[in-house]
Amino acid sequence: MLNEKMLFLGKNRSEIRELFEYGNTLKKRGERVFDFTLGNPSVKTPKWVTNALIEGLNEENIHAYTSAQGSLKARQTVKNLLNKSKKTQFSSEGIILTCGAAASLCGVFKALTSSCKDEIIVLSPYFPEYKVFIEGAGAIFKAVGFTGDNFEPDYGELESAITKNTKAVVINNPNNPSGKLFTCQEIERLVDVLKKKQKELSTTVYLVSDEPYREIVFGNEALPFIPDFYEDTIVCYSYSKSLSLPGERIGYIAIPDKITAFNDLYAGFLGSLRSYGYVCAPSLFQYMIENFKEEYSDFSIYERNKAALLSGLTKLGFKCNNPRGAFYLMVKAPDGDGKKMSELAKRQGILIVPTDTFGASGWVRIATCVSEQTVSGSMPYFERLAKDYNL
Amino acid sequence: MLNEKMLFLGKNRSEIRELFEYGNTLKKRGERVFDFTLGNPSVKTPKWVTNALIEGLNEENIHAYTSAQGSLKARQTVKNLLNKSKKTQFSSEGIILTCGAAASLCGVFKALTSSCKDEIIVLSPYFPEYKVFIEGAGAIFKAVGFTGDNFEPDYGELESAITKNTKAVVINNPNNPSGKLFTCQEIERLVDVLKKKQKELSTTVYLVSDEPYREIVFGNEALPFIPDFYEDTIVCYSYSKSLSLPGERIGYIAIPDKITAFNDLYAGFLGSLRSYGYVCAPSLFQYMIENFKEEYSDFSIYERNKAALLSGLTKLGFKCNNPRGAFYLMVKAPDGDGKKMSELAKRQGILIVPTDTFGASGWVRIATCVSEQTVSGSMPYFERLAKDYNL
Repeated sequence: MLNEKMLFLGKNRSEIRELFEYGNTLKKRGERVFDFTLGNPSVKTPKWVTNALIEGLNEENIHAYTSAQGSLKARQTVKNLLNKSKKTQFSSEGIILTCGAAASLCGVFKALTSSCKDEIIVLSPYFPEYKVFIEGAGAIFKAVGFTGDNFEPDYGELESAITKNTKAVVINNPNNPSGKLFTCQEIERLVDVLKKKQKELSTTVYLVSDEPYREIVFGNEALPFIPDFYEDTIVCYSYSKSLSLPGERIGYIAIPDKITAFNDLYAGFLGSLRSYGYVCAPSLFQYMIENFKEEYSDFSIYERNKAALLSGLTKLGFKCNNPRGAFYLMVKAPDGDGKKMSELAKRQGILIVPTDTFGASGWVRIATCVSEQTVSGSMPYFERLAKDYNL
Repeated sequence: MLNEKMLFLGKNRSEIRELFEYGNTLKKRGERVFDFTLGNPSVKTPKWVTNALIEGLNEENIHAYTSAQGSLKARQTVKNLLNKSKKTQFSSEGIILTCGAAASLCGVFKALTSSCKDEIIVLSPYFPEYKVFIEGAGAIFKAVGFTGDNFEPDYGELESAITKNTKAVVINNPNNPSGKLFTCQEIERLVDVLKKKQKELSTTVYLVSDEPYREIVFGNEALPFIPDFYEDTIVCYSYSKSLSLPGERIGYIAIPDKITAFNDLYAGFLGSLRSYGYVCAPSLFQYMIENFKEEYSDFSIYERNKAALLSGLTKLGFKCNNPRGAFYLMVKAPDGDGKKMSELAKRQGILIVPTDTFGASGWVRIATCVSEQTVSGSMPYFERLAKDYNL
């Protein structure tokens, strides 16, 4: 009698959330647990954020509705910062403040989907909720594979996957779950495929760039900005990771001025967000954006955690990828069974997520946004896990 | 190429929002404007709310993700307060914290809709976004009329409207746009129709009780609590109006323990919210709920505004309803054309919304959640409006 799909989504939480809730139960019982499940930033919110929020609380009408697209001042701030740091030409009319990246993505997917034949393609490995959001919008979810252990997109598979019904390809840079940074060369090859297929099919295929980890890049490496490579790029952003504000739900959609069908996209995104019941982004956090200071959370701990885990696990005989950003690390299951590895780790009190539902079976994901104590404390138990595998 | 429905929703803002944006433009230009458009509470957020938020900002991990349904402590607080004030038996497992009433309603409508033939019925006059949310969920929107100038539901029409495809009827008490309080007798008659039809059709028809104005009741009148009358009631709530926090997006869904299909509803609502990209309710505002004090905004100004407008407009010859709660007042267009009345008022700098899209043509809505200066200042211009009509 109820919507079966929604029932399924409610009854079958993501594996990440399932393990997260299990970990919470253990913690409440006071049991030893090394929780590497959720991308819940462990580093503090910058002081200026807290100060701005306290200051905001003293402002007249701080909690009032704003325009659906966000306050003009906040949108101008976003636009100015983007244009300054990325040397782009966004206008404040191209910015829509949202309740986080998930809301941004849902608004975009819904607006792009005009028929049940429409497809949206993601590059594996991918954040599993993409599937939920894309199917929720009524589109067909298609995942394209990777080649090698550095997760380079399979360009040939991408080319075959794009049809006249393809509305968008999603790229997540830096990537969750791999911490991969797409290189300029990789992005260029990707864009070449898109341009070729657009021409061949006479359609527009948008590139949806999901960028919540944009600022978390190790060793001062420069992150390519996707709109520089492809005009038909829609940027989805969240302050969850860069300011350690995941629970507050604040982010934006940025639409470049030169994109195909700018006005329709803008209206379509606003319409989709409206039909999903998003009224405006939280107003107190819009005030924070209005008073933005370019000072992010201290990400050095993520890099240290990554280094410690990478070297520790490699020494134990595990094979890992080498993340260059975000706060995830992928480990290969020694026998190719990620679910089993997650289960065996659980027995040691270590919670890590198998990435089968991320489009990468045979691996597990470790969220490295934990305390350094969690990393060092977990090592003896990873050692036991290695012994389970006779490494 | 894009989703035409979403495009339409984005390009055609609600009349409320359209007039609100127009008013903002006038205000920016420094022009005289009496803005009665939006339900943006004018009274201050209670001091305890600000204090709780400041206190929360000092808490460790305050901005972290919570469980999708909300923190256990916040849900327990909601449950305890409901059970204390309403003498009900909610459990914390029946509470889902949401990003406001719009999110609550969208989650509920989506979960209840399993086929494109499914219908959700609203009672006129109604909040126009119901149509957007219901159609957004893929259901058919049906509005049932009223009888008399006190907007009593047309029970006969309701009875005919309910079919085997009817999933829910929505009630909004106190009502937007009328400020009407449904009496016990009216609710009983409504429930009688529902029970009769359920039996006849062997279906479950849920009553969705949208209650953002629950605390705003004039003259200490007792508000009937819908779940007391009908077990299959789903409560959608928001703190927007009771704590003057409309922009912050915080509310909940409450599912009574004895409702039909409790577990499925709970899972379905969580699944729907997930597929719409709602990750969790804003965590800082969940902390506020955890530390809830039963002290609401000072609503006395709404009652004074209502009284002043009602007496002033009646003296000028206009015919109004007499709201007993919420912060709206409806005025009959003297010649039966609400749109024209809104247009004529606009020329006097008065912004009031025609209620044709609220299922009540021939009326306008005045949001009385304005300053007392706005009310008194507007009177000479309402007088000019009366002259336009030769009243």
